[in-house]
Amino acid sequence: MDYQTILNEIKTEVSPLLNEGKVADYIPALADVDPEQFAMTITLFDGKEYSVGCSDTLFSIQSISKVFTFTMALKLYRKELYKRIGREPSGNPFNSLVQLEYENGKPRNPFINAGAINVTDSLISFYKNDKITYEEILKFIQAISKDNSIKSCDEVASSEMEHGYRNLALANLMKSFNNLDNESVNVVKTYFKHCAIEMNTKMLSRSMMYLANNGTDPITKLEYITPSQSKRINAVMLTCGHYDASGDFAYRVGLPGKSGVGGGIVAVVPNIMGISVWSPRLNKQGNSLVGTKALELFTTKTGLSIF
Amino acid sequence: MDYQTILNEIKTEVSPLLNEGKVADYIPALADVDPEQFAMTITLFDGKEYSVGCSDTLFSIQSISKVFTFTMALKLYRKELYKRIGREPSGNPFNSLVQLEYENGKPRNPFINAGAINVTDSLISFYKNDKITYEEILKFIQAISKDNSIKSCDEVASSEMEHGYRNLALANLMKSFNNLDNESVNVVKTYFKHCAIEMNTKMLSRSMMYLANNGTDPITKLEYITPSQSKRINAVMLTCGHYDASGDFAYRVGLPGKSGVGGGIVAVVPNIMGISVWSPRLNKQGNSLVGTKALELFTTKTGLSIF
Amino acid sequence: MDYQTILNEIKTEVSPLLNEGKVADYIPALADVDPEQFAMTITLFDGKEYSVGCSDTLFSIQSISKVFTFTMALKLYRKELYKRIGREPSGNPFNSLVQLEYENGKPRNPFINAGAINVTDSLISFYKNDKITYEEILKFIQAISKDNSIKSCDEVASSEMEHGYRNLALANLMKSFNNLDNESVNVVKTYFKHCAIEMNTKMLSRSMMYLANNGTDPITKLEYITPSQSKRINAVMLTCGHYDASGDFAYRVGLPGKSGVGGGIVAVVPNIMGISVWSPRLNKQGNSLVGTKALELFTTKTGLSIF
Amino acid sequence: MDYQTILNEIKTEVSPLLNEGKVADYIPALADVDPEQFAMTITLFDGKEYSVGCSDTLFSIQSISKVFTFTMALKLYRKELYKRIGREPSGNPFNSLVQLEYENGKPRNPFINAGAINVTDSLISFYKNDKITYEEILKFIQAISKDNSIKSCDEVASSEMEHGYRNLALANLMKSFNNLDNESVNVVKTYFKHCAIEMNTKMLSRSMMYLANNGTDPITKLEYITPSQSKRINAVMLTCGHYDASGDFAYRVGLPGKSGVGGGIVAVVPNIMGISVWSPRLNKQGNSLVGTKALELFTTKTGLSIF
Repeated sequence: MDYQTILNEIKTEVSPLLNEGKVADYIPALADVDPEQFAMTITLFDGKEYSVGCSDTLFSIQSISKVFTFTMALKLYRKELYKRIGREPSGNPFNSLVQLEYENGKPRNPFINAGAINVTDSLISFYKNDKITYEEILKFIQAISKDNSIKSCDEVASSEMEHGYRNLALANLMKSFNNLDNESVNVVKTYFKHCAIEMNTKMLSRSMMYLANNGTDPITKLEYITPSQSKRINAVMLTCGHYDASGDFAYRVGLPGKSGVGGGIVAVVPNIMGISVWSPRLNKQGNSLVGTKALELFTTKTGLSIF
Repeated sequence: MDYQTILNEIKTEVSPLLNEGKVADYIPALADVDPEQFAMTITLFDGKEYSVGCSDTLFSIQSISKVFTFTMALKLYRKELYKRIGREPSGNPFNSLVQLEYENGKPRNPFINAGAINVTDSLISFYKNDKITYEEILKFIQAISKDNSIKSCDEVASSEMEHGYRNLALANLMKSFNNLDNESVNVVKTYFKHCAIEMNTKMLSRSMMYLANNGTDPITKLEYITPSQSKRINAVMLTCGHYDASGDFAYRVGLPGKSGVGGGIVAVVPNIMGISVWSPRLNKQGNSLVGTKALELFTTKTGLSIF
Repeated sequence: MDYQTILNEIKTEVSPLLNEGKVADYIPALADVDPEQFAMTITLFDGKEYSVGCSDTLFSIQSISKVFTFTMALKLYRKELYKRIGREPSGNPFNSLVQLEYENGKPRNPFINAGAINVTDSLISFYKNDKITYEEILKFIQAISKDNSIKSCDEVASSEMEHGYRNLALANLMKSFNNLDNESVNVVKTYFKHCAIEMNTKMLSRSMMYLANNGTDPITKLEYITPSQSKRINAVMLTCGHYDASGDFAYRVGLPGKSGVGGGIVAVVPNIMGISVWSPRLNKQGNSLVGTKALELFTTKTGLSIF
Repeated sequence: MDYQTILNEIKTEVSPLLNEGKVADYIPALADVDPEQFAMTITLFDGKEYSVGCSDTLFSIQSISKVFTFTMALKLYRKELYKRIGREPSGNPFNSLVQLEYENGKPRNPFINAGAINVTDSLISFYKNDKITYEEILKFIQAISKDNSIKSCDEVASSEMEHGYRNLALANLMKSFNNLDNESVNVVKTYFKHCAIEMNTKMLSRSMMYLANNGTDPITKLEYITPSQSKRINAVMLTCGHYDASGDFAYRVGLPGKSGVGGGIVAVVPNIMGISVWSPRLNKQGNSLVGTKALELFTTKTGLSIF
């Protein structure tokens, strides 16, 4: 069965679920999205791309951006990065301060909020300036997605900032443990800015190529990171990519992936393809309900699990 | 490079580390083992087996037995099993009561102690009797390992029981939440009995064949569980197989695996091989220090990571 | 205004509240009590006693027994007792294992369940035998209450044992930290036995005389403990006597006191009187709803707060 | 024995302990104080005052200021105050975020940092402006202490602000739960400003008069709060006044009191006197080591415990 047929089948099978779950509503800019949309794209190493649904519609990538900033920080700092951030699953809701306090301000992994804020802080320390840092993040995302039109949504970013007291608390707590270099407010602003970047499933699926191919874009042959770093990012996505449902995602889908509260998910079939899926309504753990189901159907139909 | 050469290289490379780490010493029977031993075995689908070190020496499999009891319970109860046990990483030391209390007596996954005790309880409920349950567990392990000589060490089992108050506390806490069917003491005794089973790396590597081959032994062609169940056990091993170092193991080794406090580790390269390694000294998270290193070297040298 | 008038007024004022709250229903023997009963007794140093309501009706004293066992253990072990038990408020529900685990098996104070179980264990270690220990506890309670008819209710005690898995978990957890000398099951049984002692408000009010008078019964002149020990027991009652509502009780009532899940409360006005009140329905924190209110009215009307 | 003799005796008895404990060193302004100082003052209702040691030396009152702001907020908001702040002991280190998160941003009591920041926020909401709020707090403290020279130390206040990331984290966490009205940074600044007020033991002992006398200054006859409010503040001091050593303080001293990290302690003997003691070195729980000992000696020598 060809991939297009499989995607079409998936769209049919998930459509009865499109009214389940709940759109992220903590900021108006996210709450206002049409909730019953669905899109899915896969991209192969020869550049072939298969899509279904509204795969040209832009949405807020939110926590998916953490994969990109983690990639940049791992490239810059290598093992040094783990002095400030761990790589263990958190076993707790994604924004919990409890664990951060018990573990002396060292976030468990780069994909919980505290960890991603810390990664952003490490990038600001390298690029010396939060504006330049954001530009470098954007440039990197445009490069791996092969699309220079990608940009952040100012409305979402500033709306986040107005409601982002918990993230400020996380940043201040890390700062109280001397595990944040720059001013909390600037770090959190930059973090919200890259979370507010908007992409569609085509762009996101394309952006996963380097992680599917050991760090090197299989089409342009550009090497972004080493094979070892690429495998390790995939490992962190598998164990920590979906907050407190990471185990469930590994169990049901069986692929390294990362979700965002905007309803997007990226995933990687090592050596074969990049995938992205989008549907705004979230399950209880904060991951796209239909998106997770679509990926589960995909690995069931194709047998493309890593296990 | 052939597998035997690789195993020999690994043995040479890990030998300087054999005096690092600390043997489990909470019971005399485990503390008395010669600490600087090392063994590693891989088993291919055609039955070829490569070993290095003292691969005939028996050791206490301890928590590795949790893979086998989880397999049995998943086969018997299917999805019903998840009413009593989760499948998320715990993000906490392996025997913590804290999480169990906050989550109303439902263990996070079948590989933390509470979860494995609960799995054993589910088997006792099925087989009606703790003695028969132990015999069924042993029979299953003998079958998948193709070795009827395998048995439990009574000294270890009863020694555990004398020091097993924390595990009794876990069992009683679950019972207080109505999440344990049988008498706490009997369940914990049976649990300790299957943890005290002794095997060598050849037996353990052989025992992983069904998980490497989608639930069916590739040599005998016996189907133990469905392909889907097999993949899912591998997923749980990857995300939860090494207590609070599961993320680190996925990061460094990149294979589904399970460790025991006796110093053994099993791992699976899906569709290719079973692996077992043994060395008694443990790292801070309670996993074999040299064993973890040996597996990391193995995936680096062979490129056989799942990522 | 004389005390009898005050007690009568209190009865009138609390009667509209008698249908609020919820009787402890975790065991049938407690659930079956007529829920709308009320009794209150005060006892002065000259032996005068004032009562209102059903002050001859026996009820299960439950956690009030912890005051008596703590007194006995403090007398026997003095400061040594604090090697195994703290004296800080717990700030958590009364049977939480979380805190006990974080604090390495040392209970926060003698009035949470873990602490009281530990106190009972210390008494068994002294009296060598659980049966004799229970008899000594009963003898002490009969002596301070001047009533040899007091005894335990076997039905309540054994019913507790059937549902007492959480207390067994607490005992086993302490044992795993080497902070319990005797067999968990025996300790918990003895603990349940003294919790199941039945008294009425007259007996309980009388039993507080020694704590109201610096350790010496003001009527018989028998010295049970030193003045300093007596003050210190009162201090622990004030800060820890009402689980996670201890602050609220100090705030509203302003007297050292101890509540039991059977609906009884004892309290002390230092140098002036003993008090006991009973009404079975409990508030959310597990203390008698009407009993707490009655005591609040009493200190408001008499000005007899310690503050 | 007269009070002056008792104070002199206490000074002699505590002097061997003056080199024990550790001065608060998280900011230079506090770390630089001469650590072996000691002062103690008691003030009677007739205005007689007894002092020993350097009772004219000013020191940073720090958390003692929380008694004054709590008094002001309770006067202004009455029971409404408890919608935003509890009155239970915390059972955790004084600046823990864990409990605040589990309890949805509602601090346990007005004397832990989160609670005091919340109280300050409530005052800013009332006085509309943080500068005016600070002036009103200062005015109140000057009034009850009968000393208009009292003022805050700018160096301490700004030094706190530089190291106050954990308090900012607490404020932001409360704000994320909608339990903080004003801007986190402004609230924390005002909080640090009133903590940095400097007084000596004479002033502080005098300032306790209204709490020793049911809300009314016994000398000037000015009523600051109602008798009921006064008793209730004393109750909160007793159960929550010394962080995680509140139980120990009640046990050993037996008086309502409040300590500060600058080494000061205030205490109240209801209906009899105000007390203040100072010595900079702290015990493990963050309370003045010698100060606590001096108060314990005082209640032992005079029998003036409330129990």
